[in-house]
Amino acid sequence: MKAVVYHGAFDVRVENVEDPTIQHPLDAIIRITTANICGSDLHPYEGRAEMDSGMVIGHENMGIVEEVGAGVERIKVGDRVSVPFNLACGSCRNCNDGYTSACLRANPSGMPGAGYGYPMMGPYWGGQAELLRVPWADFNLLELPQGTEHENDFTMLSDIFPTGYHGTELAQVSPGKSVVVFGAGPVGIMAAHSAMLRGASQVFVVDKESDRLALAERYGATAIDFSKVDVEEAVLDLTDGFGADCGVEAVGYQAHDAAGDEHPEMVLDNLVRTVRATGHIGVVGVYNPVDPHAATDEAKKGRIAFDFGTAFTKGISIGTGQCPVKKYNRELRDLIIRGRATPGDIVSHEVSLDDAPDAYDKFDKRVDGYTKVLLRPSA
Amino acid sequence: MKAVVYHGAFDVRVENVEDPTIQHPLDAIIRITTANICGSDLHPYEGRAEMDSGMVIGHENMGIVEEVGAGVERIKVGDRVSVPFNLACGSCRNCNDGYTSACLRANPSGMPGAGYGYPMMGPYWGGQAELLRVPWADFNLLELPQGTEHENDFTMLSDIFPTGYHGTELAQVSPGKSVVVFGAGPVGIMAAHSAMLRGASQVFVVDKESDRLALAERYGATAIDFSKVDVEEAVLDLTDGFGADCGVEAVGYQAHDAAGDEHPEMVLDNLVRTVRATGHIGVVGVYNPVDPHAATDEAKKGRIAFDFGTAFTKGISIGTGQCPVKKYNRELRDLIIRGRATPGDIVSHEVSLDDAPDAYDKFDKRVDGYTKVLLRPSA
Amino acid sequence: MKAVVYHGAFDVRVENVEDPTIQHPLDAIIRITTANICGSDLHPYEGRAEMDSGMVIGHENMGIVEEVGAGVERIKVGDRVSVPFNLACGSCRNCNDGYTSACLRANPSGMPGAGYGYPMMGPYWGGQAELLRVPWADFNLLELPQGTEHENDFTMLSDIFPTGYHGTELAQVSPGKSVVVFGAGPVGIMAAHSAMLRGASQVFVVDKESDRLALAERYGATAIDFSKVDVEEAVLDLTDGFGADCGVEAVGYQAHDAAGDEHPEMVLDNLVRTVRATGHIGVVGVYNPVDPHAATDEAKKGRIAFDFGTAFTKGISIGTGQCPVKKYNRELRDLIIRGRATPGDIVSHEVSLDDAPDAYDKFDKRVDGYTKVLLRPSA
Amino acid sequence: MKAVVYHGAFDVRVENVEDPTIQHPLDAIIRITTANICGSDLHPYEGRAEMDSGMVIGHENMGIVEEVGAGVERIKVGDRVSVPFNLACGSCRNCNDGYTSACLRANPSGMPGAGYGYPMMGPYWGGQAELLRVPWADFNLLELPQGTEHENDFTMLSDIFPTGYHGTELAQVSPGKSVVVFGAGPVGIMAAHSAMLRGASQVFVVDKESDRLALAERYGATAIDFSKVDVEEAVLDLTDGFGADCGVEAVGYQAHDAAGDEHPEMVLDNLVRTVRATGHIGVVGVYNPVDPHAATDEAKKGRIAFDFGTAFTKGISIGTGQCPVKKYNRELRDLIIRGRATPGDIVSHEVSLDDAPDAYDKFDKRVDGYTKVLLRPSA
Repeated sequence: MKAVVYHGAFDVRVENVEDPTIQHPLDAIIRITTANICGSDLHPYEGRAEMDSGMVIGHENMGIVEEVGAGVERIKVGDRVSVPFNLACGSCRNCNDGYTSACLRANPSGMPGAGYGYPMMGPYWGGQAELLRVPWADFNLLELPQGTEHENDFTMLSDIFPTGYHGTELAQVSPGKSVVVFGAGPVGIMAAHSAMLRGASQVFVVDKESDRLALAERYGATAIDFSKVDVEEAVLDLTDGFGADCGVEAVGYQAHDAAGDEHPEMVLDNLVRTVRATGHIGVVGVYNPVDPHAATDEAKKGRIAFDFGTAFTKGISIGTGQCPVKKYNRELRDLIIRGRATPGDIVSHEVSLDDAPDAYDKFDKRVDGYTKVLLRPSA
Repeated sequence: MKAVVYHGAFDVRVENVEDPTIQHPLDAIIRITTANICGSDLHPYEGRAEMDSGMVIGHENMGIVEEVGAGVERIKVGDRVSVPFNLACGSCRNCNDGYTSACLRANPSGMPGAGYGYPMMGPYWGGQAELLRVPWADFNLLELPQGTEHENDFTMLSDIFPTGYHGTELAQVSPGKSVVVFGAGPVGIMAAHSAMLRGASQVFVVDKESDRLALAERYGATAIDFSKVDVEEAVLDLTDGFGADCGVEAVGYQAHDAAGDEHPEMVLDNLVRTVRATGHIGVVGVYNPVDPHAATDEAKKGRIAFDFGTAFTKGISIGTGQCPVKKYNRELRDLIIRGRATPGDIVSHEVSLDDAPDAYDKFDKRVDGYTKVLLRPSA
Repeated sequence: MKAVVYHGAFDVRVENVEDPTIQHPLDAIIRITTANICGSDLHPYEGRAEMDSGMVIGHENMGIVEEVGAGVERIKVGDRVSVPFNLACGSCRNCNDGYTSACLRANPSGMPGAGYGYPMMGPYWGGQAELLRVPWADFNLLELPQGTEHENDFTMLSDIFPTGYHGTELAQVSPGKSVVVFGAGPVGIMAAHSAMLRGASQVFVVDKESDRLALAERYGATAIDFSKVDVEEAVLDLTDGFGADCGVEAVGYQAHDAAGDEHPEMVLDNLVRTVRATGHIGVVGVYNPVDPHAATDEAKKGRIAFDFGTAFTKGISIGTGQCPVKKYNRELRDLIIRGRATPGDIVSHEVSLDDAPDAYDKFDKRVDGYTKVLLRPSA
Repeated sequence: MKAVVYHGAFDVRVENVEDPTIQHPLDAIIRITTANICGSDLHPYEGRAEMDSGMVIGHENMGIVEEVGAGVERIKVGDRVSVPFNLACGSCRNCNDGYTSACLRANPSGMPGAGYGYPMMGPYWGGQAELLRVPWADFNLLELPQGTEHENDFTMLSDIFPTGYHGTELAQVSPGKSVVVFGAGPVGIMAAHSAMLRGASQVFVVDKESDRLALAERYGATAIDFSKVDVEEAVLDLTDGFGADCGVEAVGYQAHDAAGDEHPEMVLDNLVRTVRATGHIGVVGVYNPVDPHAATDEAKKGRIAFDFGTAFTKGISIGTGQCPVKKYNRELRDLIIRGRATPGDIVSHEVSLDDAPDAYDKFDKRVDGYTKVLLRPSA
């Protein structure tokens, strides 16, 4: 089959590789209809996260079931399915508790959590390819309505729509609350969309890219351009001086100031300033324990010196971590089916698998409006 | 009346001051039967937190209602009551939400949260005195059974028992969970007691003082002496390699290593290491936005460089802040009445008001087993 | 002042009565701008609930603060406010827990819960009048933006918007859920509106009045006319055979079948049939312990013989009771201010106080489209 | 193998039947070390629930893994395991949500929920036998420490300890609450034990059998003999006139009064009377949609005419349904391991499989102190 293969920093290639096969009675093989490029795919692409050369990349996948193992009974050949980016066993303690993001059995390294085509997440090939092997298929796959309707919406169910939603869950967004989201990338916009779906009275999205902020406004958010206004002042003005009830971190350790300099603590500090006393922060932007390319010695060891003293004084809670997709994807799917959620509106480009290297290049350089790219392996 | 008056670092004196009076229809005057010295009273005592000279100190108070204002109807003269350390209005948005710790109206400074006889918490005199004025008495006071029974238990209801309990609430302790508590001071021991009451399967308490650790064991905890063993290894050994489900920070920014050197990030780092992936941390040890006496420049600005990268990777949540005492004190009182909770077992010394300066001195030096000192103004 | 005074079944009169006065330092006097007639006002109007002759009726009130007692500090003269229908002390155990609907101190009868101008709810006059006395004003009153904007929306904050919302809270509505609401009266429609605000994927409203069902559809619900289709079949068809995740009872003990016969168990039975196994039901339609006019001997004693065996087998939970308005009204107000909630769209008639008797008559007979009537005492 | 086989009312026999075999890659075969007789086994035994003749009975099972299918990887041969009475697939919507009690795939009848050796719960043989086939073994089985320690405690993990605990979960028991449990059978006692573990301040257990009440007292409960005192008065006296915060129904539709007459609504009525306004009731005693042997025509159709009017007026919530064992059994196991929980103290008799018919007879007649009987198939 054809697949996007990782060969090192700034080097992904479309190559012919061996077709995946059923290796265990609970496996399924999926024919990929859509695979998205994720912002986090740029971490290995930029060489900032180490990944084995020869690995097929891609963890945002959906498609049609092509074949199932002898023990697969719930999912049938021909089913249209979304593949959560967390690959999970379904029977360990963490899976039982709903934390498929921290499955204790799927990652041979022994670390909690596994995934497809991503550094540290196990040996599993990714789905930027014609076919994908999915272990524990009955547990992992989410069934979708047959056909092709809502394809661009459903493809967001594998990662960024649930991930944005998870940010709002960690931030305890509920009806009537005000919410500030830092980052108007795809995850931040999905967080804003989720906050509106959860009944927020108002949602602010902070970024400096005007096209991204415009997209956030299409989902009902109020844009705050931090390169033009003081963020703290802006949020306090919009909330009668109290600050937002809830805050979502959708940026991560590579936070940049308006001048382009990296400050890993910048967004956390801004959240502590703009979220009200007794408020809640959800962090879905990624922070790593080790980051050799970081600006400071502390940051290289994952140590982020943010204003914890003020966080304590305000009594703020901070939830963190990768999204356990299965906790949310069924309800989000139903919101799409009923026309209440439209995550696919963020798609900027739809290209064939062959065009993946070019798409990576442009997405990484953030040119030509590359915001969210879908690959169509069968196109 | 006689009262313990603050005059600066290491200088508290017992003096005659004017009796408090009813200043508002909702005030009550309490005749103090017991007032505890709190570990946080040492912050102004040591000159590490600024407090006005002439202020009566003390926020852990209980007594008998002596007089009430014209609008007080629920509480009657003669009632035996516990006075929560948070002084709250009962009708602002935060009080409505149960956050009496962040009352928006009680502190004239405009900062959320007020209290008795403490820096930054408003002009209200403390209760290390014969009498105490309590505003919004119907809202703030918790009624106790008449008489003198359980006095040493009930006196813990004003602060440290609810504060320890709040740590376990923020850490989401529930039946069957394992819990690691850092700090075997009074708050840490109350957290351990609370964790057992909430049905924890096992509770570990980490400290280096053997007398405190012995006290923790009396409440059913397993002691870990961090001056003798590696804490991370010890906790992992006791939890089949997973780490504790829940962690409580009961130390604060003045954390010291075994050699006595201050490391404000030490306990947070240890929590991130010893709490399992998907776990929860509750921080009730105090961190401040400004700390001029801190060891590092970052810490002077309240910035604590702990291992946030690992916290994110493990998907740990961190709850923080002062305890809203009213959220818990009625249920904790009932546990005392029914003999299920015995927080008073931590009392080390009971002295008259006149002996307060001596008690402060010894408690501060941690000599003669001074762990928890009760003042008896009428003794 | 002028007021609507109750004189017995089908006999309310507009009369001059004495102005209310400040009787306690915590009282406020409100000049009523809008007072709604509630469906439950028809219980005494029809003689089905006993009420003292001479009582001013009305518990859905809003207006401008005219005067405050000496102890009122948060609320100021001139403030525009909504008055929750539950009159509550703010300092008893139930108020502390957020159950202002079960205040232990406000009702002199000793029963939990008090209110304005309503049977069994204490001696407090209602607000279908020019002026209203509000006890514990700082605690009870919700401040609104100055001016007259959103008057018809804000006036729903005193009762039916929070009551409908409470139904969805008891039914545990959350994003993506399907919800069936029985009753398209004002409370049922507010429940449907609330369910949409909480992110339901689809909401069904069951009634037999086509105008009410049309109104429900304006709020995004799917109408089910139980006089024309089989309700169970309809809901199962719309939910892939599973039944709705959540159900709301917004009818009460006077439930009628399509032929107009009363069956107090009918709606509960339909909920048990149409809510899925593991689902949740919220009951905000009123059931009484004693109902002398009921059809059966059991029902006269408040005993409702519904299909509890099936409820247990399906593992359904049933939450019940009057809405504690303060738990929700601030967030719902904010949703109105930000344009996300529009409860005022259900208003059918706006009349002067003098027209109240005529409005009661027509509302009771359900003629001329009388659905929700607002009284304007100053008109 | 030898097994207890059902042959009709009052007729169970120990017979040789075919050994179970691996029928699916996810199956395991368990060699039973302990199988308990459950009170609900008496429903088919007494002919009140229909069961196929020839079925092996028994759903409270534990043992050692003898053999596993090709797809079983988490559980190993030789593991000591507890078998939850709910047999569940682990990948349907209800299992995903934690409702293994309502698995949508395991019961071929299409009804939610499956089990072992029980009417309506599917074709699966029970475990009162030497061997038991367990489908979806990795998902269903709970691993226990090797050896034989705590056998009588661990054997309660398959049903009654989690079921009693579920009652306290539905009743929202939390630290400091007062709890009234109706029924001092094994489930009621486990509910009382659970309530204490969850930190209740006091627990009342209501029954009329003095030996059962004495057992309840061993777990820290206060016994109330309803044949001797007025239950409502007793509970109000013990709760300062308020009623209990939480109530647990551990009796079911066969509730008898002191004279021995059946009243299916009696316990629900008593709960509504003895639980305070704003309180919560958890129903784990069984109610059925159809009960041909019931006393009244309504009850034969599962319709229970209890005082719903008072329940609504008090704002009480009622949670119901079979326990999803997997939601609780790991934490309860850990409480046993750490010595905090001792559910095995209720065991009254331990007999060989051959003695099962005699044990059924005596347990059914409630003679010789037969409270909880364990069968030892290998004895």
